[in-house]
Amino acid sequence: MNPDPADRLDHRELNRDLAIFATDPLAGSGLPLWLPDGAVIFGELERLAADLAKADGCVPVKTPVLGKRALFERSGHWAKFAEDMFPPMSMGAGPAGSEGSAGSAGSAGESGDELVLRPANCPHHALVYKARQHSYRELPIRLHELAPMFRAERSGVLSGLSRVRQINLDDTHVFCRPDQVADEAGKALVSALRAQEILGLRVDYVRLSLRDDSPSYLGSAEQWDGAEVALQKAASAAGVATVEAPGEAAFYGPKLDLQVIDSAGREETIATVQIDFNQPERFDLSYDAADGSRRRVVMVHRGTVGSMERVTAAVLERYQGRLPLWLAPTQVAVLPVSPAQDQAARGLVDALLAEGLRPRLDPDGSLGARIRESRRRREPLIAVIGSAEADAGEVQVRDVAAGVEGRILVADLVAAMKGAYVSRAAGVAW
Amino acid sequence: MNPDPADRLDHRELNRDLAIFATDPLAGSGLPLWLPDGAVIFGELERLAADLAKADGCVPVKTPVLGKRALFERSGHWAKFAEDMFPPMSMGAGPAGSEGSAGSAGSAGESGDELVLRPANCPHHALVYKARQHSYRELPIRLHELAPMFRAERSGVLSGLSRVRQINLDDTHVFCRPDQVADEAGKALVSALRAQEILGLRVDYVRLSLRDDSPSYLGSAEQWDGAEVALQKAASAAGVATVEAPGEAAFYGPKLDLQVIDSAGREETIATVQIDFNQPERFDLSYDAADGSRRRVVMVHRGTVGSMERVTAAVLERYQGRLPLWLAPTQVAVLPVSPAQDQAARGLVDALLAEGLRPRLDPDGSLGARIRESRRRREPLIAVIGSAEADAGEVQVRDVAAGVEGRILVADLVAAMKGAYVSRAAGVAW
Repeated sequence: MNPDPADRLDHRELNRDLAIFATDPLAGSGLPLWLPDGAVIFGELERLAADLAKADGCVPVKTPVLGKRALFERSGHWAKFAEDMFPPMSMGAGPAGSEGSAGSAGSAGESGDELVLRPANCPHHALVYKARQHSYRELPIRLHELAPMFRAERSGVLSGLSRVRQINLDDTHVFCRPDQVADEAGKALVSALRAQEILGLRVDYVRLSLRDDSPSYLGSAEQWDGAEVALQKAASAAGVATVEAPGEAAFYGPKLDLQVIDSAGREETIATVQIDFNQPERFDLSYDAADGSRRRVVMVHRGTVGSMERVTAAVLERYQGRLPLWLAPTQVAVLPVSPAQDQAARGLVDALLAEGLRPRLDPDGSLGARIRESRRRREPLIAVIGSAEADAGEVQVRDVAAGVEGRILVADLVAAMKGAYVSRAAGVAW
Repeated sequence: MNPDPADRLDHRELNRDLAIFATDPLAGSGLPLWLPDGAVIFGELERLAADLAKADGCVPVKTPVLGKRALFERSGHWAKFAEDMFPPMSMGAGPAGSEGSAGSAGSAGESGDELVLRPANCPHHALVYKARQHSYRELPIRLHELAPMFRAERSGVLSGLSRVRQINLDDTHVFCRPDQVADEAGKALVSALRAQEILGLRVDYVRLSLRDDSPSYLGSAEQWDGAEVALQKAASAAGVATVEAPGEAAFYGPKLDLQVIDSAGREETIATVQIDFNQPERFDLSYDAADGSRRRVVMVHRGTVGSMERVTAAVLERYQGRLPLWLAPTQVAVLPVSPAQDQAARGLVDALLAEGLRPRLDPDGSLGARIRESRRRREPLIAVIGSAEADAGEVQVRDVAAGVEGRILVADLVAAMKGAYVSRAAGVAW
């Protein structure tokens, strides 16, 4: 529709018409508020993440957004990542924030009780794994959570949904035996590629991110080599070519990154599969092997859908606001031509609501103005009901994205929309 | 089953068998980790909260866990509630947390950028309402979110799930005209009572919490009187008697509290309806009236299901761990008597999974040991398949809570379980 990339709007521009999120100086920079239509998108992405996780045998967990400073010292984040972390909160300090002094919220004796907003979810998942001992027969254990993590970005770099301080991330950590690593990495890669396909987001290439000769990486050369081989095996089993990128690894291990390059040439990672031999060492995560010995588990970090903020920005820009039906906050505008069709319109709306679909009834004003309003809102479908349609139990439906229009029975419209919704189809099959 | 209250276990004792949550010194006091079975309960409670909210016309929002200190100064929390709030984080400070100094994560010029974990969700919802102007015809607007809020409790008082520092709360804020307040309060009260009925939690009485003569309340006598009358009207319309409790109001207005008293005589509030004339003033929240004037909106705080932590502790104790089927992490233990019935057992498990139900297949060990294990886990149903049952396409099912047992066709078992699940029934209708 907008073949010239220069005409395309970014998600902040689209948001003016769509009311997906708001920012407010009192909330703070990089802390967007998801408005009702944005929260519907968030909810659909969360459901997609949960479905994909469940299909791969992941089980849910729920962990707090805070941990003790000692947790992140243990994980290595404190040493490697502290610049991007929020400052710790001393639970011995009063609300005025005077560090180290005894206040009403604690006693001076609790000086070890410094809490920090987490920079990643993996340390908490390591604690969940560690909550009891595991046998080799139970593995892999895959813990899934869609949860906030935090980055203390400078306010100058924050922007819309694409650069934020609270990141709501679809995050899974797999705990497996060494012989299961390549399989698990492959499964994670396939799931991440499938998520991007459902979302309609292009993946430009898969990057194999390796360490360089900087001293800031944790772990032995042997571990890094083993992990690299496992990732290469996973990618070739999935039939995916990779591009090697030294210096792009996480501090704890190499990774596969799904990369996209936007029209301005900026490159972004939208999902990731990471092998981690280091956190299992640091947290002493083990399993009971068949021979009775205790062995070190391997951790695979899998990001599938990605962060809710980044994905929402990406799909808004990709579809220029007119989202596929399953993801659209309003799926169809229902427009009775005159009050005589109000009852037929109400009947359609009720039939759609009964199927869990999201219609918007707009009875007031000229038909032309209401159609323009629906187009401004980038709603995927417009259903007009005049007297001929009402008499025939039909509607005049326009699929705006597909550019098709025609009359259809109410029951057939409901079925076609339901089909597109439950299958998360890119378009409605008319 | 345990008629003597002294024999009853509290949720921390039950948790030893059930693995609902874990605590870890590295995570910190009052920050429980929800293990996979606990996360299933959390997810079911979240779905219940979303369904009840949607049935009352609430729309979802998603807001960050942090706000600027100025947000909570504006809302009044800073003045009235600071003792219970986490210390603010200066975004100009480095990770070492030295207040006010310029660090890598910001500049000294950002000294106003102090972020605080929120003590309540209402200030963010006020910002969502304020993101655009509203007409009298749009009201009421009901914003729903299940989200974390934070209390800087002293570590000495923290306990299991019942006293925590991160509280995941089912929270709705209604923005309405003054003439809609009593209706909205009534709707909120009915929904909260319905939630407790579904959960099987006794409500001992409904408390009308009023202010006393302390100077710590915000707002005029006229506002307080009007709100009190609206709450009394709401309660009598719902056919609910109330007990007046001076001094128990929120600092911003009176409330209706659903109260329970435990066996030790401790009293708790499990859900609440609060009228708030003050935050609309403080945030200058208004609507365009029919006559073109701009009027002050009224805010109603509605808590329905309650906090995930408190409700989970309460249902675990109420049912002594054997939760109703819809809420139980495992709904049925499927036990083939011998390997010859493994295929029939697998068939039952697959049929249950296909309906979104949660079976647990346990094929190994003596039947007696497996039945004891299922009872230890407090699973609501046990389905045993011997050769006679397998040949007849039946199972021997025991409803442990109801104390009934019998043979039933596989298809009838699936249908009975599905019926209990979707209706959130207290028991299965055999």
